[in-house]
Amino acid sequence: MSEKLSTQPYKGTRDFYPQEMRLRNWFFGVVRRVLEASAFEEYNGPMLESLALYAAKSGDEIANEQTYHFTDRAGRELAIRPEMTPTVARMVAGKIGELSFPLRWFSIPNMYRYEKPQRGRLREFWQVNVDIFGCDTYEADLECISSAIRVLRAFGADESMFTVHISNRRFFNDAVAAIAGTDAEGCRRISKVIDRRGKVPREVYTGELSALGLDAGQIARLDALYTMDAAGAAALCPQSEGAGELLRLFDMLQKTGLDRYCRFDFGIIRGLDYYTGTVFEVYDNAPENNRAMFGGGRYDNLVGLFVNNAKVSGVGYGMGDVTLENFLRTHGLIPGSLGACRRVLITRFDDVPYQTYLALLDRLLGAGLSASVYLGSKKMGKQLDYALKNGYTHTVTIGSDEAARGVLRLKNLATREETELTPDEALRLLTE
Amino acid sequence: MSEKLSTQPYKGTRDFYPQEMRLRNWFFGVVRRVLEASAFEEYNGPMLESLALYAAKSGDEIANEQTYHFTDRAGRELAIRPEMTPTVARMVAGKIGELSFPLRWFSIPNMYRYEKPQRGRLREFWQVNVDIFGCDTYEADLECISSAIRVLRAFGADESMFTVHISNRRFFNDAVAAIAGTDAEGCRRISKVIDRRGKVPREVYTGELSALGLDAGQIARLDALYTMDAAGAAALCPQSEGAGELLRLFDMLQKTGLDRYCRFDFGIIRGLDYYTGTVFEVYDNAPENNRAMFGGGRYDNLVGLFVNNAKVSGVGYGMGDVTLENFLRTHGLIPGSLGACRRVLITRFDDVPYQTYLALLDRLLGAGLSASVYLGSKKMGKQLDYALKNGYTHTVTIGSDEAARGVLRLKNLATREETELTPDEALRLLTE
Repeated sequence: MSEKLSTQPYKGTRDFYPQEMRLRNWFFGVVRRVLEASAFEEYNGPMLESLALYAAKSGDEIANEQTYHFTDRAGRELAIRPEMTPTVARMVAGKIGELSFPLRWFSIPNMYRYEKPQRGRLREFWQVNVDIFGCDTYEADLECISSAIRVLRAFGADESMFTVHISNRRFFNDAVAAIAGTDAEGCRRISKVIDRRGKVPREVYTGELSALGLDAGQIARLDALYTMDAAGAAALCPQSEGAGELLRLFDMLQKTGLDRYCRFDFGIIRGLDYYTGTVFEVYDNAPENNRAMFGGGRYDNLVGLFVNNAKVSGVGYGMGDVTLENFLRTHGLIPGSLGACRRVLITRFDDVPYQTYLALLDRLLGAGLSASVYLGSKKMGKQLDYALKNGYTHTVTIGSDEAARGVLRLKNLATREETELTPDEALRLLTE
Repeated sequence: MSEKLSTQPYKGTRDFYPQEMRLRNWFFGVVRRVLEASAFEEYNGPMLESLALYAAKSGDEIANEQTYHFTDRAGRELAIRPEMTPTVARMVAGKIGELSFPLRWFSIPNMYRYEKPQRGRLREFWQVNVDIFGCDTYEADLECISSAIRVLRAFGADESMFTVHISNRRFFNDAVAAIAGTDAEGCRRISKVIDRRGKVPREVYTGELSALGLDAGQIARLDALYTMDAAGAAALCPQSEGAGELLRLFDMLQKTGLDRYCRFDFGIIRGLDYYTGTVFEVYDNAPENNRAMFGGGRYDNLVGLFVNNAKVSGVGYGMGDVTLENFLRTHGLIPGSLGACRRVLITRFDDVPYQTYLALLDRLLGAGLSASVYLGSKKMGKQLDYALKNGYTHTVTIGSDEAARGVLRLKNLATREETELTPDEALRLLTE
């Protein structure tokens, strides 16, 4: 016996057999329908991009650490896309003169990150990317958050299942400055500590803030922000532009009834160097999953990396397939019978001319039914077994006796009822 | 001005802006519908696979030359999939005990090949892969060929636009042996020359065959095969199993009326080391494209690379997106208005509360319409211009006057008709 190849997929990637693929086609189909209904348009770009794209956006270190990259034979440094934003920024920049802004774009690409696989994190994943380009004001932030809520509601999720945590990076900077009363560089250092607040022990957190010159009162004022609502927080620095954005956003969430899905959360930061305005994360409320499922926010002028004097702001979010599927499973939002429709297996006897079956197949397909002829020559029991295991709902049997009389036997596999019918009668019954 | 990144996609890859994406979603949607109707089930696998998979199937040289490959940080030799067959064979092998054969599977993956980009060939492409596993007889070959014809007919193509060229590799071997009258090794060498018949000058072809011991009569008998039909060719070596398969296949094509799309073509070989039975290529009949668009055939027991004592034959084809799109364009088979549906832009005035527009949006979306509120505050002319450029069919306008009277103005952008209506009346009109 020769040595055999492994049947395992590469670490951190998945095989999607038909059963899993039906699930994916269903949930991506729901997402696509909701986004298209609200006038988002789908785009896609290549799986391979210049590595420089990611270095320019995220800094060299992240680009190299998390990204699969290599050099092609012409010496080009390439990366397998670890995210979609640089690609879409490149595409917007490439046709900036022809496009009519604001753009409402989405995509559902697969991407790769070099990570240690764990719950909710894989090396290959798909991500719904939703972006609005070319609207600088809070209405686009609101539309992004609304579209995320629309998508989750379309699956049957309600406010008991998820919460959108919202903050604003401009407000964050102004609040830190107001409390710390120090210069820009001091605030930047303090922000870095605050960013790790939930990830380090309390005494490490307070110790580091003290070392940067904050006293107990200032630390307490920072702490207080985490329990405030948007109005309370905004009152701390009413002159802040970010506070104004927060208030307008929350005011409109309330007026449209979306506030029941949303709360202000000073702890939402999402990476210090990238987002510039509204930021949000959608949390799964289930105790076993209680964490951010996905998020997004406003980032300014990525397009400027490609085009001089361009200024196109963006706001968007990315929703990963792994966390979405976890969420749907946890809350029982996956229907029992995905893509269930009538599907007919035409069973086969060797003593009936094969063209008899193929002619019937043509009629069934022509009538818009899903059907196939059993391929091979096995005993009837095996053919029925095959039909049951492969999602067929009916079988049609024509033995030599039926063939001679121009009839067929139609069997409903759920009720096990079998009836002798003419082909016309069977077609009527199956298409009614 | 700082140095800017290029807006060009990587060589041989494409950006799909919304307009191109609509086209792709349309044509892949047609393919998916046809395949699902005939009970094929969709699967997918990872973009990265072990390089060994391709080396085992195709030989080291091809795997290295045409494949993007690299080593990950754990020392694994990986490849970006250049084709889908090794992945699907691995998946079948991985669940061989649970799956109910014959499998009817399809997939529409993207893949990469390191090629010099040219008409019909790119480095990144998508390929519809259709396979039947676990049926050893001609019925599965017929079903593959039928499904390819069904797909093309669903686009409105007829027999004037394409032809399926069919041969059989077993018959090919037997015919060469019968004419050459030499041993297996001699036949193998002769086959390699025949494989290049159309690609080298005639005198090179005949010279090489002479050098391998064939006389003018034998070369003439080979030539004659290229103008024969299946019955004529099969008569040359009636004992050949391959000839029997060919005859059964063509007999059934004729009985089902599919013969008008098909012809026997001794020149269809498709790589010497891989296919083992029926082989076929679908040709575009347009003079400017006249060449094979895609093809496939029977290959035996790829699953055996993964599992000892497994024997699962396969037959399938792969249809690339680039050639399919060329074909549809050449024959005028792309409808003028792809995905055209009613799409409403709610225009916006600053002196009307924003929630008025958002509440109307909610009603339109709730009624199943596609709609959005204009994001930003531009003059009405700009907003109308935006609607026209972004595929909206209607605008709804509510100024402060209309808001006060509880009405709106609905404009049909095609007819330029504008009517004042209540929201209820507008909804009725838009959803009728």
